[in-house]
Amino acid sequence: MEKNRLEAFSDGVLAIIITIMVLELKVPQGLGASDVAALKPLLPVFLTYVLSFIYLGIYWNNHHHLVKAANKVNAAMMWANLHLLFWLSLFPFVTGWMGENHFTTAPTALYGAVMLMAATAYFILQNIVIAQHGRDSKLAASIGRDLKGKLSPILYAVATATAFFRPWISCCLYVLVALMWLIPDRRIERALD
Amino acid sequence: MEKNRLEAFSDGVLAIIITIMVLELKVPQGLGASDVAALKPLLPVFLTYVLSFIYLGIYWNNHHHLVKAANKVNAAMMWANLHLLFWLSLFPFVTGWMGENHFTTAPTALYGAVMLMAATAYFILQNIVIAQHGRDSKLAASIGRDLKGKLSPILYAVATATAFFRPWISCCLYVLVALMWLIPDRRIERALD
Amino acid sequence: MEKNRLEAFSDGVLAIIITIMVLELKVPQGLGASDVAALKPLLPVFLTYVLSFIYLGIYWNNHHHLVKAANKVNAAMMWANLHLLFWLSLFPFVTGWMGENHFTTAPTALYGAVMLMAATAYFILQNIVIAQHGRDSKLAASIGRDLKGKLSPILYAVATATAFFRPWISCCLYVLVALMWLIPDRRIERALD
Amino acid sequence: MEKNRLEAFSDGVLAIIITIMVLELKVPQGLGASDVAALKPLLPVFLTYVLSFIYLGIYWNNHHHLVKAANKVNAAMMWANLHLLFWLSLFPFVTGWMGENHFTTAPTALYGAVMLMAATAYFILQNIVIAQHGRDSKLAASIGRDLKGKLSPILYAVATATAFFRPWISCCLYVLVALMWLIPDRRIERALD
Repeated sequence: MEKNRLEAFSDGVLAIIITIMVLELKVPQGLGASDVAALKPLLPVFLTYVLSFIYLGIYWNNHHHLVKAANKVNAAMMWANLHLLFWLSLFPFVTGWMGENHFTTAPTALYGAVMLMAATAYFILQNIVIAQHGRDSKLAASIGRDLKGKLSPILYAVATATAFFRPWISCCLYVLVALMWLIPDRRIERALD
Repeated sequence: MEKNRLEAFSDGVLAIIITIMVLELKVPQGLGASDVAALKPLLPVFLTYVLSFIYLGIYWNNHHHLVKAANKVNAAMMWANLHLLFWLSLFPFVTGWMGENHFTTAPTALYGAVMLMAATAYFILQNIVIAQHGRDSKLAASIGRDLKGKLSPILYAVATATAFFRPWISCCLYVLVALMWLIPDRRIERALD
Repeated sequence: MEKNRLEAFSDGVLAIIITIMVLELKVPQGLGASDVAALKPLLPVFLTYVLSFIYLGIYWNNHHHLVKAANKVNAAMMWANLHLLFWLSLFPFVTGWMGENHFTTAPTALYGAVMLMAATAYFILQNIVIAQHGRDSKLAASIGRDLKGKLSPILYAVATATAFFRPWISCCLYVLVALMWLIPDRRIERALD
Repeated sequence: MEKNRLEAFSDGVLAIIITIMVLELKVPQGLGASDVAALKPLLPVFLTYVLSFIYLGIYWNNHHHLVKAANKVNAAMMWANLHLLFWLSLFPFVTGWMGENHFTTAPTALYGAVMLMAATAYFILQNIVIAQHGRDSKLAASIGRDLKGKLSPILYAVATATAFFRPWISCCLYVLVALMWLIPDRRIERALD
């Protein structure tokens, strides 16, 4: 029952984050607000929204499998979960900032930095759940070397760095990480069966 | 249990979409903000809100029946569901844009295009659930020819096209589709009994 | 299980309505934004927020008891519930309009009109639940003459009318109805025991 | 089941409060909006957001344990819970006001006052739950002298007062209370085992 409430709260926060992110797509105002041309400046905002939506979908998906695998909710897990939600809650801000400034240096770097922090927070949460099962458990075995989980933070760090001279490389890296994760995390699922 | 979380997350996202849509009804500001006249420019926004509210109510209703009929939640279903939620999340934007510009061409066409994408996403999700049951199952039989489900995208496409010369025809079509669906989808319900 | 989802969706919508209403309390901006004086124009907005918060609390409370008493969720109940949520979703708008215009005629009248519609929507939902149990059921008996439920719409209608010459009388009536309902609806609870 | 709905509603409201608070972190607009310098004025808003996020995390955590310990949901508990949610719903406003005005007197004092009201509301809710169990129950014993629960309101009151001459002392006190509570409330958990 405790687990249910952790899931429900996380689902609530994720659902709200994913939805308020769309508020950055502001309805055009003023002269020419009803022309197709009024949508043009919104295109980068829209593309960033699509990217962040996919990221949050991936987090929700993996979070779902991870929490399902947890034995029990303890204080460490609750705080590790809130820590993850904190970094995810900054997605609408960095999404809006990057989208509205058409992928310039500072916003693109900050986007990567927040992605890096969120990935780190997820990594901590995952380790707490693994520790509950023990290092020799089926769960630990199924997550295994966790290649994707270890590669993502590295790619985010690289993308944050490349933003200072070639922001478009950073954007490609963000899309790459998203594509890499779109294949859902079946490892845990398999181990539990 | 997995299904519960998919439902809870979808309910959360739908509840938020339906509610933030009302934020486009902006409280009048400045001189004469307290006059009845200040509500007049809000009337088309309000009418569009009513229309989109009914659409989302229909989606929630049908989604409810569809997920209830699903045997198991798998990765394909999760992503098809997120895909549907993505298009639904654009409702507040297109609702605001169409309402604030009094049903002019571009906003009215975009409204139809997003409706079309949402209907397509629902169709994909429905097919994934049917595939779980098999083409000869009771569920497949009960959905049958799915006349309404096939007619809606056609009407949305027509409405998107008519928006370029007679936007009011598009609006009539949107209302027509809504009325057509207001009779809730009892086919699945019946088959399960 | 169906009932759970109706409750979860209604809870979600109510939770969001109650929370976005607070967004009308806008953080003061510009010169003197950090003075106590900057809060003064927010006072009527705050008071209206308190009033609407109490109203929504009452609706949540009574809705909770009513749905608990329902035998089964059918299509009529789902749409009656969405109809109620629609009128409740207009609370943030009418609350903001009345609060920001210091209880002038038009906003105060509209507040009453929306309250009247919400009360009517609740009345319809209640009758659908009673009809499930039958007119001679314990539930019907426990709701009985439903004095408060019948008095409230009348008081809202009167308040809407008085707003046209003495808005402060309307405000008193809104407070009166809230106080009248603050005593939670134990009738249904009693009957079920 | 009643308890589930109280939890679900509270979780919903808390999830929304925690998430809309981030809307005060407004995406920089205008000239130089994409410079790192544009983030500088956002720093105090960000720090206040972190502080309030931690507070809400603590409330969610303790609320979770408290409601779990409750035997039954009655009208008094429902209203005490709504009363707590009311004060928590003002967190986004006071967080934004304090952050945007760089910890000046009035906003810093109001922050403390709202914290004090929320702490008081929690105290009332806790006493209602204890009363259900009886003064000699395990639960009452486990909460015991409730040092943290009694110290917090005193520190908030002191911080509200110090804001009038040294706002930075108030800020230190707010951080102190947060740190004091970060160690989760295991007392109730222990007693139930």
